[in-house]
Amino acid sequence: MAKLTTRTEDYSKWYNELVVKANLAENSGVRGCMVIKPYGYAIWEKLQAELDKKFKETGHQNAYFPLFVPKSLFEAEEKNAEGFAKECAVVTHYRLKNDPDNKGKLIVDPDAKLEEELIVRPTSEAIIWSTYKNWIQSYRDLPILINQWANVVRWEMRTRLFLRTTEFLWQEGHTAHETKEEAVAEAKQMQEVYTEVVENFMAIPVVKGYKTPSERFAGADDTYTIEALMQDGKALQAGTSHFLGQNFAKAFDVKFVNKEGKQEYVWATSWGVSTRLMGALIMTHSDDLGLVLPPKIAPIQVVVVPIYKTAEQLEEIRQVVGKFSSELKAKGITIKFDDDEKYKPGWKFAEYELKGIPVRIAIGPKDLEKGQVEIARRDTLEKQFVALDEVSDKVETLLEEIQTNLYQRAFDYRKDHTTEITTYDEFKDVLENKGGFISALWDGTEETEEAIKNETKGTIRCIPMAFEIPTEGVDFYSGKPAKFRVLYAKAY
Amino acid sequence: MAKLTTRTEDYSKWYNELVVKANLAENSGVRGCMVIKPYGYAIWEKLQAELDKKFKETGHQNAYFPLFVPKSLFEAEEKNAEGFAKECAVVTHYRLKNDPDNKGKLIVDPDAKLEEELIVRPTSEAIIWSTYKNWIQSYRDLPILINQWANVVRWEMRTRLFLRTTEFLWQEGHTAHETKEEAVAEAKQMQEVYTEVVENFMAIPVVKGYKTPSERFAGADDTYTIEALMQDGKALQAGTSHFLGQNFAKAFDVKFVNKEGKQEYVWATSWGVSTRLMGALIMTHSDDLGLVLPPKIAPIQVVVVPIYKTAEQLEEIRQVVGKFSSELKAKGITIKFDDDEKYKPGWKFAEYELKGIPVRIAIGPKDLEKGQVEIARRDTLEKQFVALDEVSDKVETLLEEIQTNLYQRAFDYRKDHTTEITTYDEFKDVLENKGGFISALWDGTEETEEAIKNETKGTIRCIPMAFEIPTEGVDFYSGKPAKFRVLYAKAY
Repeated sequence: MAKLTTRTEDYSKWYNELVVKANLAENSGVRGCMVIKPYGYAIWEKLQAELDKKFKETGHQNAYFPLFVPKSLFEAEEKNAEGFAKECAVVTHYRLKNDPDNKGKLIVDPDAKLEEELIVRPTSEAIIWSTYKNWIQSYRDLPILINQWANVVRWEMRTRLFLRTTEFLWQEGHTAHETKEEAVAEAKQMQEVYTEVVENFMAIPVVKGYKTPSERFAGADDTYTIEALMQDGKALQAGTSHFLGQNFAKAFDVKFVNKEGKQEYVWATSWGVSTRLMGALIMTHSDDLGLVLPPKIAPIQVVVVPIYKTAEQLEEIRQVVGKFSSELKAKGITIKFDDDEKYKPGWKFAEYELKGIPVRIAIGPKDLEKGQVEIARRDTLEKQFVALDEVSDKVETLLEEIQTNLYQRAFDYRKDHTTEITTYDEFKDVLENKGGFISALWDGTEETEEAIKNETKGTIRCIPMAFEIPTEGVDFYSGKPAKFRVLYAKAY
Repeated sequence: MAKLTTRTEDYSKWYNELVVKANLAENSGVRGCMVIKPYGYAIWEKLQAELDKKFKETGHQNAYFPLFVPKSLFEAEEKNAEGFAKECAVVTHYRLKNDPDNKGKLIVDPDAKLEEELIVRPTSEAIIWSTYKNWIQSYRDLPILINQWANVVRWEMRTRLFLRTTEFLWQEGHTAHETKEEAVAEAKQMQEVYTEVVENFMAIPVVKGYKTPSERFAGADDTYTIEALMQDGKALQAGTSHFLGQNFAKAFDVKFVNKEGKQEYVWATSWGVSTRLMGALIMTHSDDLGLVLPPKIAPIQVVVVPIYKTAEQLEEIRQVVGKFSSELKAKGITIKFDDDEKYKPGWKFAEYELKGIPVRIAIGPKDLEKGQVEIARRDTLEKQFVALDEVSDKVETLLEEIQTNLYQRAFDYRKDHTTEITTYDEFKDVLENKGGFISALWDGTEETEEAIKNETKGTIRCIPMAFEIPTEGVDFYSGKPAKFRVLYAKAY
């Protein structure tokens, strides 16, 4: 098995090689669209299940809305339409016919032109709010708390596996409320849910913050974001939750009779995370040997590789493994016994390192004699011998340790790569040479934000919720009085 | 709550009303596309989970392939292309722009025309086999056993909620094998898996059979089907599994080196069930009061309606219910306590009948005195009083009884509506007046099949696997020697 390009050699190349070789995803024959391969999809399924559980615990129900948005609905909310019009797939015809000039080939049938074009959803606010209009008459119909698992399409010009693809998978929550306060609380609650899952389940520390107006979702009054820091010092927006105000209610004329008997526009939120999180997972924990998975999200948490020469030895190993294996299964731990004869142990070791299995157990004839196994942890690559009757407890503890260690490692990296600056020279130096988050004062103007972005590619990732509004100090770029302390970074 | 149109008045109207009023689905603003509402989606999720479990138990893994099929791939397998070309959504552009003549409106940007049109997948053989080509070199790469949960689009002219919609949700399995025998065995295995889930989980009896050549999937060498009979005497194809031969391997040039070192084309299957099964579920069990759900697929299996006048009474009821409720939950039974004050018990009774909740428990002050509850079963509408300490065991037994009874009821209906005929007059009489399956001899020719279809709308649903090949007898229509005993019916 050829080794991966190392991260220091070429981070971007390392990423692509890892994604393909670890069987996570690959590019397809369709421009910008990926194939999510079984191993990648198994990780995504575990993440889906965890998110779905949290959504249901917070009172949401799943539903499904159409893939297509008729153009007249698409354009109804002007800012939203403007935000997505430049990158949308448009269905114009509903039939192909035989090409009269070219046997065996098909052409678009000009007689099957749609009266109104259909946009393949880049996001579903338009289709959903045109539906909610019929569902909402009175305050009794509120709140509506719905989530949808779906595919969406945004015609991106430069694509990267998981990070930016023309089609991607996501969930999108769309809620409707009586009051502004309730909608804001919902949007913040979902930011909190995302934080919990991304931090506790994926072991990725995030910064919770507000997006600046220029970085908000098209059609939102406020966007709450969680921002993660990748190993190469670039930031990645891991999830967003939007307070949509009454923008969609007004665009689709969705009113309700309130408790006082008066007509009011409905308040809205929407929130989503996508297969992009797979990219964040990879770029937070992995190393030059391949993927490193936090145990909670790993489809296989423990792999056992038997080392043997004879069928008798294998049988003996199988019996010994069977005992702790069923103990581990009883604890809810996923374990695989790999007795595939097509590959040698060394090949398997490398393969499971590439695939990021958190714990690997090796056991051979000598171990049998000594009544032990060798346990290797993927995060630190440390190995130790463990007595057979202690394997089950040891592995359980180790999985918890790995989960904690991966989070802590990423947290420490972020801490080391968050730099407070006061001058533009410092800013450029850190952005170019060290990377990471740059904590700085901002005057709150789009001009400053835009100028810095154009000059350096550094963008304001968020106004962290944990930061106090500064009472004094000046913007490091404009010299004007500061309004916010923000985090800048180059971003995916 | 207005009552449903009855089934005898207008079966089709009853169906549509039930689907909408029970919050299963509704038509959307997009032609032919439905919105699957939360309650309908919750049922679909339970079915998905059951199917997914069975797929994994039989060695399959999930993956995800692109929504779009470039035209050149779409047309590669000729029969498949021919079968779907007439009803496919075609993406021709990737951008909208502002309409210069109409402020606030958008038009398709003619400068953003795709070089090659993209078809929204009606099924994924083409995109998947163009991918498998890169995954398969040797027999060591086989079998590939993959399933995908996805949305697909077929431009149907006449649509019905769940039964026939432009966009629908489904799963599609796509497998690749070394030998013909292995592929045939896989296709039959999946027909068996579908049978198990549809019969045991959905309580819908099915006939397993082969499709006639004219009814096969476009591109298949053989299609195995499961056929169900609806309450109105019409048949419904509930799931199909296809032996695809080497058709797609040849179209996409997918060869492998076999164990003898020789190049061979790969053998294939595909198989799918869709949200159409929701229609089968509704039309198998429901009645004039609404949906009737088999307990195994019901998102809520038991509902408790408290009857009270004072807060003290409600509190007392809550305590009594709490006890058997936690016993039921411990048994894995889903139970809802409905203390919503906005609605009266009578309204709730009707609502839960409409929604098909298998068991309803009512409890009021008199019941408290007597230490009992009233239990009503949805399938027979029978009620009985049960002592409080027997509720948990009684409900558990009752749920099993309801599941069995619903299957048996549907089975008996089908038995009563399967008629063997020997003359065309009998055939037409049964088809028009009694409905159901018609068992008859067929000469095996497409001419006979086609003529009967055109004259009567009766089609051959399948050649049941349970039927022996007849050694004598003649086709009731053509008088020619019979080749098969088949089942005819009008079909959804």
